[in-house]
Amino acid sequence: MSEVALDDIDRGILFLLQNDARNITIAEIAEGVNVAASTVRNRIEDMEENGVIEGYSPKIDYEKANYPLHVLFVCSASANEREKLAAGILDQHGVVDVREMLTSKRNIYVEVVATDTRDLTEITNEFTSIGFSIESSEIITNHYTRPWAEFEFEEAEN
Amino acid sequence: MSEVALDDIDRGILFLLQNDARNITIAEIAEGVNVAASTVRNRIEDMEENGVIEGYSPKIDYEKANYPLHVLFVCSASANEREKLAAGILDQHGVVDVREMLTSKRNIYVEVVATDTRDLTEITNEFTSIGFSIESSEIITNHYTRPWAEFEFEEAEN
Amino acid sequence: MSEVALDDIDRGILFLLQNDARNITIAEIAEGVNVAASTVRNRIEDMEENGVIEGYSPKIDYEKANYPLHVLFVCSASANEREKLAAGILDQHGVVDVREMLTSKRNIYVEVVATDTRDLTEITNEFTSIGFSIESSEIITNHYTRPWAEFEFEEAEN
Amino acid sequence: MSEVALDDIDRGILFLLQNDARNITIAEIAEGVNVAASTVRNRIEDMEENGVIEGYSPKIDYEKANYPLHVLFVCSASANEREKLAAGILDQHGVVDVREMLTSKRNIYVEVVATDTRDLTEITNEFTSIGFSIESSEIITNHYTRPWAEFEFEEAEN
Amino acid sequence: MSEVALDDIDRGILFLLQNDARNITIAEIAEGVNVAASTVRNRIEDMEENGVIEGYSPKIDYEKANYPLHVLFVCSASANEREKLAAGILDQHGVVDVREMLTSKRNIYVEVVATDTRDLTEITNEFTSIGFSIESSEIITNHYTRPWAEFEFEEAEN
Amino acid sequence: MSEVALDDIDRGILFLLQNDARNITIAEIAEGVNVAASTVRNRIEDMEENGVIEGYSPKIDYEKANYPLHVLFVCSASANEREKLAAGILDQHGVVDVREMLTSKRNIYVEVVATDTRDLTEITNEFTSIGFSIESSEIITNHYTRPWAEFEFEEAEN
Amino acid sequence: MSEVALDDIDRGILFLLQNDARNITIAEIAEGVNVAASTVRNRIEDMEENGVIEGYSPKIDYEKANYPLHVLFVCSASANEREKLAAGILDQHGVVDVREMLTSKRNIYVEVVATDTRDLTEITNEFTSIGFSIESSEIITNHYTRPWAEFEFEEAEN
Amino acid sequence: MSEVALDDIDRGILFLLQNDARNITIAEIAEGVNVAASTVRNRIEDMEENGVIEGYSPKIDYEKANYPLHVLFVCSASANEREKLAAGILDQHGVVDVREMLTSKRNIYVEVVATDTRDLTEITNEFTSIGFSIESSEIITNHYTRPWAEFEFEEAEN
Repeated sequence: MSEVALDDIDRGILFLLQNDARNITIAEIAEGVNVAASTVRNRIEDMEENGVIEGYSPKIDYEKANYPLHVLFVCSASANEREKLAAGILDQHGVVDVREMLTSKRNIYVEVVATDTRDLTEITNEFTSIGFSIESSEIITNHYTRPWAEFEFEEAEN
Repeated sequence: MSEVALDDIDRGILFLLQNDARNITIAEIAEGVNVAASTVRNRIEDMEENGVIEGYSPKIDYEKANYPLHVLFVCSASANEREKLAAGILDQHGVVDVREMLTSKRNIYVEVVATDTRDLTEITNEFTSIGFSIESSEIITNHYTRPWAEFEFEEAEN
Repeated sequence: MSEVALDDIDRGILFLLQNDARNITIAEIAEGVNVAASTVRNRIEDMEENGVIEGYSPKIDYEKANYPLHVLFVCSASANEREKLAAGILDQHGVVDVREMLTSKRNIYVEVVATDTRDLTEITNEFTSIGFSIESSEIITNHYTRPWAEFEFEEAEN
Repeated sequence: MSEVALDDIDRGILFLLQNDARNITIAEIAEGVNVAASTVRNRIEDMEENGVIEGYSPKIDYEKANYPLHVLFVCSASANEREKLAAGILDQHGVVDVREMLTSKRNIYVEVVATDTRDLTEITNEFTSIGFSIESSEIITNHYTRPWAEFEFEEAEN
Repeated sequence: MSEVALDDIDRGILFLLQNDARNITIAEIAEGVNVAASTVRNRIEDMEENGVIEGYSPKIDYEKANYPLHVLFVCSASANEREKLAAGILDQHGVVDVREMLTSKRNIYVEVVATDTRDLTEITNEFTSIGFSIESSEIITNHYTRPWAEFEFEEAEN
Repeated sequence: MSEVALDDIDRGILFLLQNDARNITIAEIAEGVNVAASTVRNRIEDMEENGVIEGYSPKIDYEKANYPLHVLFVCSASANEREKLAAGILDQHGVVDVREMLTSKRNIYVEVVATDTRDLTEITNEFTSIGFSIESSEIITNHYTRPWAEFEFEEAEN
Repeated sequence: MSEVALDDIDRGILFLLQNDARNITIAEIAEGVNVAASTVRNRIEDMEENGVIEGYSPKIDYEKANYPLHVLFVCSASANEREKLAAGILDQHGVVDVREMLTSKRNIYVEVVATDTRDLTEITNEFTSIGFSIESSEIITNHYTRPWAEFEFEEAEN
Repeated sequence: MSEVALDDIDRGILFLLQNDARNITIAEIAEGVNVAASTVRNRIEDMEENGVIEGYSPKIDYEKANYPLHVLFVCSASANEREKLAAGILDQHGVVDVREMLTSKRNIYVEVVATDTRDLTEITNEFTSIGFSIESSEIITNHYTRPWAEFEFEEAEN
C-alpha cells in the first residue's frame, strides 16, 4: 500500500498549516511542535514528495467574488469513462471541485459557481455534451472547513 | 448586497495563489499580473478583509495519511437547527468538510475520513446523537480541484 | 357541478384574449369570431362573472427584470393545512406561482424568483417557518405558454 | 448580460398591470405611480420591447371551462433535444404550460388539461411518440397567482 | 393451514364460472367438466362454504358508467391500524378496490373512480382525515382480467 | 364520448348484482329497485351491450385454493408496446389481473398467484422474456371489494 | 416439487449442527435428539444427499481477519444474464456472499470485504467490467446469525 | 484496534475449513498447509479464541426444508435502538440472518424464511410491534457462497 506513516510531529505541522498555510513561518511551526526548524523543513518536504500534501490554496468565498450561485450537480458517467471524465471536467467553465464516487450511477459530484441561470444553463450544456447525465442539482448555501482536530499537536508533558 | 467588485488583477492574484498559496512570493505574483508589489500586497489585504479570501490551507491526501476510508454522508437536520448543527459538526471526530443545502431533507453533506468500519460507526453514532439523520453514505474514490481558469490573468497585449 | 357550458364563440374570444389581452379591442374580437360587439361584451362579462376568466395579467420575464434565479420548490404540507398554507404562501417574498397537488407529500409546488443564493436562503427560511418541508429544488431555465389551440375559432364555412 | 434595470416606476406599473391588465387605463396607472401618462406609455413600450413584458393573457379556470382534469406531467427528454422538444410540445393537444429544468432527467414539466382518462391517454401517447418519457403524473387541485408584492409601488412620502 | 385441496373438477368449475358466473347453468357446467349436476352443485357449495369462492360480481367498466377518472392511490397507514383502516376504507365514497401490502409504508393500494378533480379532492380529503398518507397517485388507463388458464379443465383422454 | 347515461334504476341493478351476481333472480332485482321484471331484463341487456357490464365472475380466494403467494409486480414496458403487452400478459402462467398506467415507467401492474419461490421465478422469467422490466415486487396480504355504495338504490319515499 | 419432508428428528439434528457443526459428535447429537447414533448418521447423509444440507463452514469475522471494510453492493444485471453473472461473481476478488433477487433492477446483492478504498475501487471495477451496474453501496457494521429456533428439538415428554 | 495478524497458514486453514468444516480432519488440514498437526490445532484454537472464527454451521437450503418463501426485508430502526433491536430480532420466528447498516434509515436487513403469505404476515407483525419500520421486501431466488479464494494456501515452491 502507498500509505505513509505519519507521526505526531507531522500531524502537528499539518494542523498549523491548516490554520494559515500562507503566512505561518517555518520558525513558528517549529516552535509550535517543539522541534528544530530544519526538522520542520524536512518533514514538509517529505510530505510534499510522498503526496500527503498535494498543494496549498486560498479558500475563496465565491459568492463574495460575484458568483452568487453555488450549485452541486450529482452526475452519472459510464463506469469505464468515469475516471477520465471526472478529471477532465475540471477544465469546464464554472467548475471548482469534483468528487468521484464508487457506484455506477450518481457517481460524480461537481461543484459549480455561476453568475445566473443563463450561465448555469451553458455550464450544464457542456456537461451533457461530454457525456454526463445530470441526475439532480442542489443549491449550496454554506460551506465549512476547519483545521482538523485529529492533527492537533499535543506536547507530552514532562 | 455584500458582494465585492473584483477586477482582473484581483482575479489574477487569486489564480496564482491557487497554484501555490504557500511558496509563491509577493514579487512573483506582482510579475505575474504585471503590477507593483505594493499593489499585490494591498489587493491581498483587501480580499482577506472583505472575506473573498477566507484563509489558506494545504490540500491533504487523507488516504496517504493513513485514513483509508473517505465517505460522504448525506444527512438531514431540521430546518431551524440546520445552520447551527452544520457549523457544529466540524468539531466532530473524523469530519473534514461540511456543506449545507437549501432543502429541508438531505440538507447537510458531511465528508468524513476514517480508519475502518469501527471508526466510521463511532463517528456516525456521534452524528445521530446530536440530531442528524443519515440518509445515505457514498464512498469517495477521488477528489479533484484546480486553480480556477476563470481567474487566470491574461494581460492585454499592446 | 359548477362547470359552465362554453360554445365556440366563448372559446374563440378566449383564444384572441390569450393573444393579447391588453390591446385587442372588443371590435377586433367581434370581427375575429364573427358576432356583434355587444355579444362579445356580454360573453366576456359572463365568463368573468362565472369565473372562467379569473383575471388578466402581463407575462413577465423575471430574469430580464433582474431576478436571475428562477426556482421550483416541491414542498410538503400536512393534509389539513395544505389548502390554507398554499393560498397564504403567495404573500411570501419572492413567490410568483403556487400549485397544489392531490397527494399527502410533495403536494405544493412553489415557483420563486430571487436575486442570489442569500435571497433564496431567506425565502426558504420563511417557507420552513410557516410549516413547509422543502422536498427538492429544481432550477427553471425556460417557461413557455401559448394561446391555446383548442380555443381557436374556426368559422363554419358556408 | 441581457438584464434590464427597472426602477420603482417600472415595478409599480407591472404591479398595477398584474391586477387587471385588460381594463386598467394608462391614466389610472399614471395616477397610481404618480407620473405623467406619457411616461407610463413610454415605460410600458420599453418593457414590451426589451422583453420584460412578454405579453398579456387572461387567467383561465380550465375546470370551469369543462376540462375537469388538470395534470402535471414530469417528463424526461434527452439533453440535446430538450429545448427543441420543450418549445414544440406547446402545439400538442391539451398542453397549457411547459417548464424546462436544468437536469438531464425529469427536465420538462408539462401542464395538461383534459376531459377524461381517454383524452389524457391520447395526449400522453403524443408525448411519447415525439420522444418524451413520462416519469410521473400529479393531479393539480388548485393554482394560485397574485400581483407580485415586490413590484408594489410605494410613493416616497414628503 | 386453512388451505383447501382442490381437484381438477373444482378447478374446471371455477374456470367456467369465470367465463360467465351469472348465466351458465349447473347443467352446462356439469357437461363442461364431465360429472353429474349434483356433483357440480355440491362442489360449488363446498367452495362457497370453505371460502375459495368469496362471492360473484359483475365486472363494471366505470368509465362507461360516467366515472371518467380511474385512479390508483398508494397510501401508507401505520402498521397497527393498517388492517382495520384497509377494511374500513371500502365504505368511503368512490372506492372500488383495496389491497393491503406487507411493508410499513406504501402498504395500502386503493382504487378510486371519480367524476372530476373536485370529486377526487373530496375523496382524498376523506382518506387523510381517517389517517392515510397518500404517497402517490397513478391514473389507470386499462384493466384486464380473464378466466384463469390454470383452472381450465382438460379431460383425461381415454 | 362513449359514455352511457345511467339512471338510478341502472345503478340499483348494478348494486344488487354486486351483492351476488350468480344467485339473485330477475324477480328479486325487480323488487329491489321497484320496477317490472321486464324492465330489469332490458336494462341488464343494455348494460351488457354497451359495455358497462363486461362480464360476471366469482371472486376467488387464491390462497385458499393452494396458491399461498400473492404478489403485485410493478413493471415497465416501452410506450409503444405497452398496450399490446399488457393485454398479452394475461395469457402468462400465474397472472390474474393486469392494470395499465399512464406513465412511461412503472406503467403495468401485474397481480400474480404462485405456489412458491421457484414458481415465481419461472413466472418472472416469462415476463422479462417478453420485454417487461420488473421494477418492484410487493407481497399482497389482503384484498377487499364491496358492492359499491354509490350504486345503492334509494327509493324516493312518498 | 423438490421439497423434502423433514421430521422433528431431522430438524433437531440441524439445530445441534448449527450450534457447532465442527466439534459435535454423532453420539452427542444422538443423545440430544434421543435416537440411535446410526439413525443420526443416516439422517445427516440423507440431508446431505437431497441438498437440505449444502455444506459446513466456519463463520469468519472478516474485520478481525484484517479486512476492515465490509460493504454490501446492490447491483443490477440484465434479466437474461442475471443467474450466470450472480454465480460467476463469486470468483471475484473480495466477494464473500451473493444473493439474487426476483426483480429486473437491483437484483444482485453482493457482500464484499476489503482492506481500503483503493481495494474497493479495484473490486468494483471488476464488477462493472463484467456487466454489473452498481446501484448503491451500504457499509455493514454488524452481522448476526443463530441456530434457528424453529429447528430446536423438543422431546415429547414421557 | 482489535485486528489479528493472520499469516498464510492461518488463511490456508480457514480456506480448507470453508470447504467442509465438519468432516475434514486436523491431519488432512495439516497436510494441506504443510505444517504439523499440532500447529493446525493451535492455530485453530487461537482463531477461535480471538474471534476470527465465530463458529461452525451447516449451510441449509431452506426451500428444500419446506420453507418455500425466502424474503429480504429492509427495515429502519431508530439510531439509538438499532444495535439492540438488530441483535434481538434473531429470536423472532422465521428470521435466519440479520445485517446492520451504517445509515439512519434502511439500516437493518433481515432475511426471513416462511411457509406462505399468512406466515410472512405474522412475522412482519412481530417486526413492527418491536419498533421496526419495514421499508421494502425483496424475494430472494438464489444464494451463493464459496470457500474464499483470498484464503487459498499456495505453498512456496523450492
